[in-house]
Amino acid sequence: MLRTRLDLDRIHAARRVINPMFLNTPTYRCDALGRRLGCTVSIKLETANPVRSFKARGTELVTSLLTEQGRTAVVCASAGNLGQALTWSGRRRGLDVTVVASRRAPVAKLDRIRALGAELELVDGDFEMARERAVTIAQQRGIRLLEDSLDIETCEGAATIGLELADAESTADTVLIALGGGAMATGVGYVLKTLAPGVEVVCVQPTGAPALTRSFHERRVVTTESADTIADGVAGRYPIPEVLDDLLAVADDAVLVQESSIIAGMRLLLEHTGLVVEPSAALGVAAVLEDRDRFAGRHVVTVICGSNVDLDAYHRWVHRT
Amino acid sequence: MLRTRLDLDRIHAARRVINPMFLNTPTYRCDALGRRLGCTVSIKLETANPVRSFKARGTELVTSLLTEQGRTAVVCASAGNLGQALTWSGRRRGLDVTVVASRRAPVAKLDRIRALGAELELVDGDFEMARERAVTIAQQRGIRLLEDSLDIETCEGAATIGLELADAESTADTVLIALGGGAMATGVGYVLKTLAPGVEVVCVQPTGAPALTRSFHERRVVTTESADTIADGVAGRYPIPEVLDDLLAVADDAVLVQESSIIAGMRLLLEHTGLVVEPSAALGVAAVLEDRDRFAGRHVVTVICGSNVDLDAYHRWVHRT
Repeated sequence: MLRTRLDLDRIHAARRVINPMFLNTPTYRCDALGRRLGCTVSIKLETANPVRSFKARGTELVTSLLTEQGRTAVVCASAGNLGQALTWSGRRRGLDVTVVASRRAPVAKLDRIRALGAELELVDGDFEMARERAVTIAQQRGIRLLEDSLDIETCEGAATIGLELADAESTADTVLIALGGGAMATGVGYVLKTLAPGVEVVCVQPTGAPALTRSFHERRVVTTESADTIADGVAGRYPIPEVLDDLLAVADDAVLVQESSIIAGMRLLLEHTGLVVEPSAALGVAAVLEDRDRFAGRHVVTVICGSNVDLDAYHRWVHRT
Repeated sequence: MLRTRLDLDRIHAARRVINPMFLNTPTYRCDALGRRLGCTVSIKLETANPVRSFKARGTELVTSLLTEQGRTAVVCASAGNLGQALTWSGRRRGLDVTVVASRRAPVAKLDRIRALGAELELVDGDFEMARERAVTIAQQRGIRLLEDSLDIETCEGAATIGLELADAESTADTVLIALGGGAMATGVGYVLKTLAPGVEVVCVQPTGAPALTRSFHERRVVTTESADTIADGVAGRYPIPEVLDDLLAVADDAVLVQESSIIAGMRLLLEHTGLVVEPSAALGVAAVLEDRDRFAGRHVVTVICGSNVDLDAYHRWVHRT
């Protein structure tokens, strides 16, 4: 029995609450990409939905609970994807949604948060500054603060990805998961370690934003002074202790990858699967690129977690020769 | 009772034969795209699978039947997508697959057909020349010739898209379907007219390859001397009489769109949904762009039927300013 904050029954129950639009996402082998990477590669595609990331799995759950509780408003800090998802889920349920984000977040993400109907507040600092501001707003207004990865519903929502992977026809040897706050890694990892314990769970973070990976290896919270990566979706600096505990229980490894590998991963995903992805979604491919021997001949599944990217930046990264 | 070659029971049965990987594809609203087009737009995404088009729905059915019959080989002419799908489905069932294609087909499509394990034969002419050559090969070798749109399994496979659209939570006002040989239009159209007769079925073809659309309006087979369009997937010149009869029974309209609108459609799909699509998959958006008044305020569903595109060409089209 894994000692985590997660619970399989609750994760199964989550599937009945989440809009089916976000469930049972495409999972398929990409042989061309596999040949290029020297292993069997399957993709779990979390971007073919109105918010273009996996985050709505969690926000569907949270907003459903808030509605049951008669709450009318919610606030979150977001690197951009959680904000879109919370707004999408919240607005459909009549909730007022406030999102706090860094002014440096991708314009595409900020525009889409506004377009979905959130009150968007920008802060001058990074994501951690947005988190602080969101706490203040929640206190001032007396409304629910949704904290990504800390609030168990965000982990349970992401964990439904794990149920789908565990149900898949051919089980993977390794599942590669982008590591940001840790909701996806702990959620998916928990389900896999419970239902398919033979599957290796490998988390991937950029070298430029290594706080949770370092924490994992040192088995204690390690923070960083700054985060510097194009993978804006995973650029946290202050790991959450409870999340680290869960991660230590369910992840086999956490690795760091270079920015150049993330870009190469984005390019390979475009060339061999036709997918435009945001940098965080290329972390898995980047990990294989950096350690081909480790994955040689294995069947790896990589979760394509988001496609909210500024096209100008994408173009600069991917087409720079 | 519609008088067509299609049958609802057989289409339901097809769903039990087709690999689930190709079924229940993502269907979701794209509000950003809808705002841009002045209507509600939903996407039915047929590209998140190993062959990146809807064609495997039909080839799964055909190859399953061939295997039951003890056949060991099959040949088809293909603009590129059917060939990939037939090879994928056939090779998994131990069939030898021969694909005949035009030398002018997109390199990406030809490369992927080869990579999947087909014997690929190229002809100097266009798709219609490939069709002739495939007939000869089938006769010489005594093997099954798969004829797209004529062979009912290709229509029944595509028709399973219609079942999913008819099951969708909110029914569309209009479904926009790329019109090539007619398998998708007749299959999806038949199901919608049977299960959701209020939904308007509008087929879309490029002005540069208008044979089946002209045939639809003149209610007789009209051929063209040439086909000139970037939408290589729908560039036929010789409509099939049986398919035209079915189309006349199930389609409400067939419209032609300019090349510039197809390119604008591809660009909008990239900008607002993050999807890289082949030109044929942008026909629906192109149709809305060319006749905004017709679709204003309506809920249109457009089937994103393929994403096999040469990236160099895509880049030239979409990023040309």
